[in-house]
Amino acid sequence: MTDSLRVAMIGHAFMGNAHSHAWRTAPHFFDLPLRPEMAVVVGRDADRAAEAASRLGWAESADDWHSVVTRDDIDLVDICTPGDTHAEIAIAALAAGKHVLCEKPLANTVAEAEQMTSAAADARSRGVHAMVGFTYRRVPAIGLARQLVADGRIGDIRHVRAQYLQDWIADPEAPLSWRLDKSKAGSGALGDIGAHVIDLTQHITGDRIVEVSGRLETFVKERPYAAASTAGTLGGGGTSTERGPVTVDDAASFLATFASGAMGVFEATRFATGRKNAIRIEINGSKGSLAFDFEDMNVLEFFDAANPAEEAGFRRIIVTEPGHPYVGAWWPAGHGLGYEHGFTHQVVDLVTAIGAGTDPSPTFADGLQVQRVLAAVETSSDTRTWQEISS
Amino acid sequence: MTDSLRVAMIGHAFMGNAHSHAWRTAPHFFDLPLRPEMAVVVGRDADRAAEAASRLGWAESADDWHSVVTRDDIDLVDICTPGDTHAEIAIAALAAGKHVLCEKPLANTVAEAEQMTSAAADARSRGVHAMVGFTYRRVPAIGLARQLVADGRIGDIRHVRAQYLQDWIADPEAPLSWRLDKSKAGSGALGDIGAHVIDLTQHITGDRIVEVSGRLETFVKERPYAAASTAGTLGGGGTSTERGPVTVDDAASFLATFASGAMGVFEATRFATGRKNAIRIEINGSKGSLAFDFEDMNVLEFFDAANPAEEAGFRRIIVTEPGHPYVGAWWPAGHGLGYEHGFTHQVVDLVTAIGAGTDPSPTFADGLQVQRVLAAVETSSDTRTWQEISS
Amino acid sequence: MTDSLRVAMIGHAFMGNAHSHAWRTAPHFFDLPLRPEMAVVVGRDADRAAEAASRLGWAESADDWHSVVTRDDIDLVDICTPGDTHAEIAIAALAAGKHVLCEKPLANTVAEAEQMTSAAADARSRGVHAMVGFTYRRVPAIGLARQLVADGRIGDIRHVRAQYLQDWIADPEAPLSWRLDKSKAGSGALGDIGAHVIDLTQHITGDRIVEVSGRLETFVKERPYAAASTAGTLGGGGTSTERGPVTVDDAASFLATFASGAMGVFEATRFATGRKNAIRIEINGSKGSLAFDFEDMNVLEFFDAANPAEEAGFRRIIVTEPGHPYVGAWWPAGHGLGYEHGFTHQVVDLVTAIGAGTDPSPTFADGLQVQRVLAAVETSSDTRTWQEISS
Amino acid sequence: MTDSLRVAMIGHAFMGNAHSHAWRTAPHFFDLPLRPEMAVVVGRDADRAAEAASRLGWAESADDWHSVVTRDDIDLVDICTPGDTHAEIAIAALAAGKHVLCEKPLANTVAEAEQMTSAAADARSRGVHAMVGFTYRRVPAIGLARQLVADGRIGDIRHVRAQYLQDWIADPEAPLSWRLDKSKAGSGALGDIGAHVIDLTQHITGDRIVEVSGRLETFVKERPYAAASTAGTLGGGGTSTERGPVTVDDAASFLATFASGAMGVFEATRFATGRKNAIRIEINGSKGSLAFDFEDMNVLEFFDAANPAEEAGFRRIIVTEPGHPYVGAWWPAGHGLGYEHGFTHQVVDLVTAIGAGTDPSPTFADGLQVQRVLAAVETSSDTRTWQEISS
Repeated sequence: MTDSLRVAMIGHAFMGNAHSHAWRTAPHFFDLPLRPEMAVVVGRDADRAAEAASRLGWAESADDWHSVVTRDDIDLVDICTPGDTHAEIAIAALAAGKHVLCEKPLANTVAEAEQMTSAAADARSRGVHAMVGFTYRRVPAIGLARQLVADGRIGDIRHVRAQYLQDWIADPEAPLSWRLDKSKAGSGALGDIGAHVIDLTQHITGDRIVEVSGRLETFVKERPYAAASTAGTLGGGGTSTERGPVTVDDAASFLATFASGAMGVFEATRFATGRKNAIRIEINGSKGSLAFDFEDMNVLEFFDAANPAEEAGFRRIIVTEPGHPYVGAWWPAGHGLGYEHGFTHQVVDLVTAIGAGTDPSPTFADGLQVQRVLAAVETSSDTRTWQEISS
Repeated sequence: MTDSLRVAMIGHAFMGNAHSHAWRTAPHFFDLPLRPEMAVVVGRDADRAAEAASRLGWAESADDWHSVVTRDDIDLVDICTPGDTHAEIAIAALAAGKHVLCEKPLANTVAEAEQMTSAAADARSRGVHAMVGFTYRRVPAIGLARQLVADGRIGDIRHVRAQYLQDWIADPEAPLSWRLDKSKAGSGALGDIGAHVIDLTQHITGDRIVEVSGRLETFVKERPYAAASTAGTLGGGGTSTERGPVTVDDAASFLATFASGAMGVFEATRFATGRKNAIRIEINGSKGSLAFDFEDMNVLEFFDAANPAEEAGFRRIIVTEPGHPYVGAWWPAGHGLGYEHGFTHQVVDLVTAIGAGTDPSPTFADGLQVQRVLAAVETSSDTRTWQEISS
Repeated sequence: MTDSLRVAMIGHAFMGNAHSHAWRTAPHFFDLPLRPEMAVVVGRDADRAAEAASRLGWAESADDWHSVVTRDDIDLVDICTPGDTHAEIAIAALAAGKHVLCEKPLANTVAEAEQMTSAAADARSRGVHAMVGFTYRRVPAIGLARQLVADGRIGDIRHVRAQYLQDWIADPEAPLSWRLDKSKAGSGALGDIGAHVIDLTQHITGDRIVEVSGRLETFVKERPYAAASTAGTLGGGGTSTERGPVTVDDAASFLATFASGAMGVFEATRFATGRKNAIRIEINGSKGSLAFDFEDMNVLEFFDAANPAEEAGFRRIIVTEPGHPYVGAWWPAGHGLGYEHGFTHQVVDLVTAIGAGTDPSPTFADGLQVQRVLAAVETSSDTRTWQEISS
Repeated sequence: MTDSLRVAMIGHAFMGNAHSHAWRTAPHFFDLPLRPEMAVVVGRDADRAAEAASRLGWAESADDWHSVVTRDDIDLVDICTPGDTHAEIAIAALAAGKHVLCEKPLANTVAEAEQMTSAAADARSRGVHAMVGFTYRRVPAIGLARQLVADGRIGDIRHVRAQYLQDWIADPEAPLSWRLDKSKAGSGALGDIGAHVIDLTQHITGDRIVEVSGRLETFVKERPYAAASTAGTLGGGGTSTERGPVTVDDAASFLATFASGAMGVFEATRFATGRKNAIRIEINGSKGSLAFDFEDMNVLEFFDAANPAEEAGFRRIIVTEPGHPYVGAWWPAGHGLGYEHGFTHQVVDLVTAIGAGTDPSPTFADGLQVQRVLAAVETSSDTRTWQEISS
């Protein structure tokens, strides 16, 4: 009989919903070495936490994470709160010997991320594992991209161009949310969505960004307050007549150099009208190229320069074959997956690593490195100079 | 406290897996008037049924559907078996006062479908509901298409072209499976996948096919037996050196006339090399056009002739806005859904209808009408004449 | 010094414009064995013919083709008039020992096409050549498609689906033009544009259609007369309040069987709202598939089943490499060609064949065979039966 | 009778070929106020110039441009030589009272461009006109994009992302050509192709780049010499065993700020494996977005935020309607144009402006401004600082 893995989840908004679905679903499609038990969900408001427990499938609820993360009957803490709370919760949980899954970005500052990474290293020596939730790594097309690069099919990488384009606050009258408040969110488009494309491009290429020159912009400096709190929603609901300041970036763009010498060009914005969740990555190498767009997430485009010129072209690979990463567990070819599958795969990889006593990936150290790139972009924007990223 | 709806599912292969996921998932994202309980799964082999119960999340398992469909503690029977058993199970379940969800095609013959429809009408008068599982109706883009037609945005429909293209037996050495055996499957590409595009085009247009001229073809007449039984897989696994006959069609094409006079052109094939699950529907009307391809399932293309000619073009609508059918319950805009969401939406619509005492759609009568179109295509292919479809 | 080839062109509307551009342009990009001289253009109205000569680059003009086609100083007659005049002009020109290029469809009836083909065979024995203008054969992507099929890259062909979709009379108030008048045009969508996809699919596959079951439809039976004659335009200009009958088909659809057993599905319509000149061809074979859409005319999509499943996908081949058909004479890779290049390539192939004393392709016999398919579709629509095409 | 405009063209390689086609073709499709006469083509090698005259349609040839640009019977000088000669030829021609069309980039240095602009201003006061050849402005889809921006359909522009991607030297063994020699070409990818996207984005937005932070890279520092001179080809032919240095950039990327505050992200590279001539421009504004890719050059994508969210999507406008820029002169809707049409439209606009005595656009001042952006990017790459562009 498989041992159980008792999970406490902190936070139950958008990310908590996605994580809950993953915890519920993973065991039905994948063979896991441990059997996840959805033990307790934590929220600041007891009533809403109780409602979330019922809706999301957790056995109980609580309103204080401090007492939960030290409970003997909890094995893993899943952190789905805004970034300003990540460090405190994660460090406490690790100290209490709990495995930790922490939503990205790892923290709101490099200093916090360093503390967390140090705590994770410490815990690691005691057999306790920590993972940061760059879930898009688990989209099968991204897995395939990484594999093709690792197999040398793209050759030496020359160009990395990556964009994360959304438009949910392109309208100047879209209301303030915690995501536009630096004290909560730490960063705007850069940290919220730019972090993903930084992680993804480094993950696919197996390379590291070593310097950046960037620019942040806040196009709309003030916005109406939301009429009422709308947890977990992105700018929905009505607005108030009062206005407050936007204290994070609306958009970020930066040039990057990878350790290999590849040139990177990055953008992250919430002002790309008509682009809903366009994570677009293109990689050009000496032997081939790859292109991905999350708006068509079951597809990877691959140009293989080994084909004769007259037959060469970007191939639209529908990444739903049994041999593609994670896909064999799901449906027949051509029956596409959706956004939430990345979270399910994340649970699979995490539980598998814990069961095997190996490091789940990405580690907190990976999250820290992304944090350092984010910080370098911010500094570069302030100082109008190139910034190196220490490794 | 919400009342429960105790479900028994018959069959646990590919469709049983998809249905189980839907029963598990629907209550976590949608408000349902009844609380589904996954009571029992039935399979002919007791051991495999028990394994399926554990893997798919059913409380118990059984190996004889006859005793299950009459159990007092069962409210609904979900039929996921091959088509040759649908009539017997559905009629027994309805007679026992159980609601029925039956996979498509409704039956293997028109005669069976008529008996089932008659049984459903009978049951209906006793407050018992029956639904046939044309799940693709529940893809949000299809729902949006139907809505645009109903709102008159396309005008008078002139052309319906629909293809369901797969390639899983394009290789002549792909093994025999029950889906290639007329005694089990009733029909080949026509009934298995052609049925979907018949239903979808009628659903979107709100119109009916009244006559057809068609041709069926079996390109590969003999195939190797599969090396071992591989329930729920489509042609995977090794093959034996012995061969057996393919007794269903590999491909079907037919012209159709709709009641409105619109011209229809249909194809269903398992020999479209490179097309994995391409359900492609294009509708041209006097005021606009629609185009859909399941290989990019979160998108509906819409041409609005009301736009000035210089600004008009097919719009790639990403059907993930909160206002799109079913989408509000899921993720923010741009975070696409996958294949299995259609099944979840099917559960939602079915349970909602049962709760409200209204007819779930599509009814068995809808399934029967599709069956009549299928039969007319077969007859047309045999007689090389146009065939009318009685209504 | 290269010998000259003195050309007379009959008709100077849309097709005459395209042909003139080709005669002017071909010698500047291709090495031709004969030097085309644009000697005379013929139109029924002397003034308009003179204007056309000046605008299109012809040395002189005339208003009676009879005298022109027998002139000693004319080597080739290029027929760009409506289909009802093709037979008479072509037969007279061939009898006078002139090479003939005749626009498609070859004629308005099979009987005329047979006479023309017989006249061409006769002329052939005297070293005089005849060609029918299925110009889309000369789109480089079509040439590449034919080559891939000939090289066995697609394997045994199972499916041919072809559509020629336009929308220029989708509006019921679009005016009558000679193209909607059976006495001039012979046929509607079927003969005007359906002829192209019949020819193209046969050309690409190297196969022949042997039987058809089809349906023609005239959605809008009466239309306003055009306010004034607008030769060469497609439905532009204002309309009168008077109405006249549409005597040709608005749309045609038909099933076809190829000699190889491949299944064909064809559509031709002027009612596909939003589709401007969508010649769409998809071919599925046992080893691969091809897809083409003239709305993206510099691209051929190719699925190669020889690729491992995990790497396979439709390749978007941009058909602008020097090694692609005709392309080496033009621009560097990626610098796409347009509609009119097909006509230039047609001139190149025709002049090259005349210079070499070989048969230009497609011959009048090819045009006759297409005519027989068109006639069979019409008969099939009238009789509601399958029709065989004699070879 | 229309007056003639006697043209001398200097240079007859790739650009000379394209310009010749335009001079030959424009009068046949457009009404021009002056009748171009292709008087003389000039090349350094007399024999090759004579061959070019015959092939390209020029009345005579010459091997010394100095004597030609002062000939009384020449009205306009069309400069198609490498950039190092532009200034000298253009200034001499303008001084001699000849109109000038000069290929881009205007010059190899800002100093030269300034002299040319000054000479053009001087000439302007004498009724002599000068134009720089940013031909892609004349692609109809680009014209439509500019119009939509000017009409306010995009609102306030937030983001401009532009890439010019080619791959013709991605192979490290591709030979040296004059385009890789700084003394001839002045610049590499930046000046050759980056110049186009700088001009295009400024043209479409009606805005100016005011500062940049950029990086240039030469991935392959040495290449084999070409086996033999291959005028007008881009790296075709064999290679020698000897190698020489690449003295220009292989790739350039830069961030830009527009006067309006819009954020720009630019790339130009000859190392984007699989991208043949991908001029990709995306513009996001507060009311809409535009997207263009020259690899599908007859299409403009337009997202109109004025559409209800449920119906909004990027529209694929096929820019072949009679009402689209330049298109009415060509073919019916859906019959796409090609690369060379931009040159024909350039001739049309130039001759029209000369006829009307108005300024042709883009002027040498526009070319100078692009040159300043190019220089600022180079300086920025050297100094690793942001650079302002003086206006």
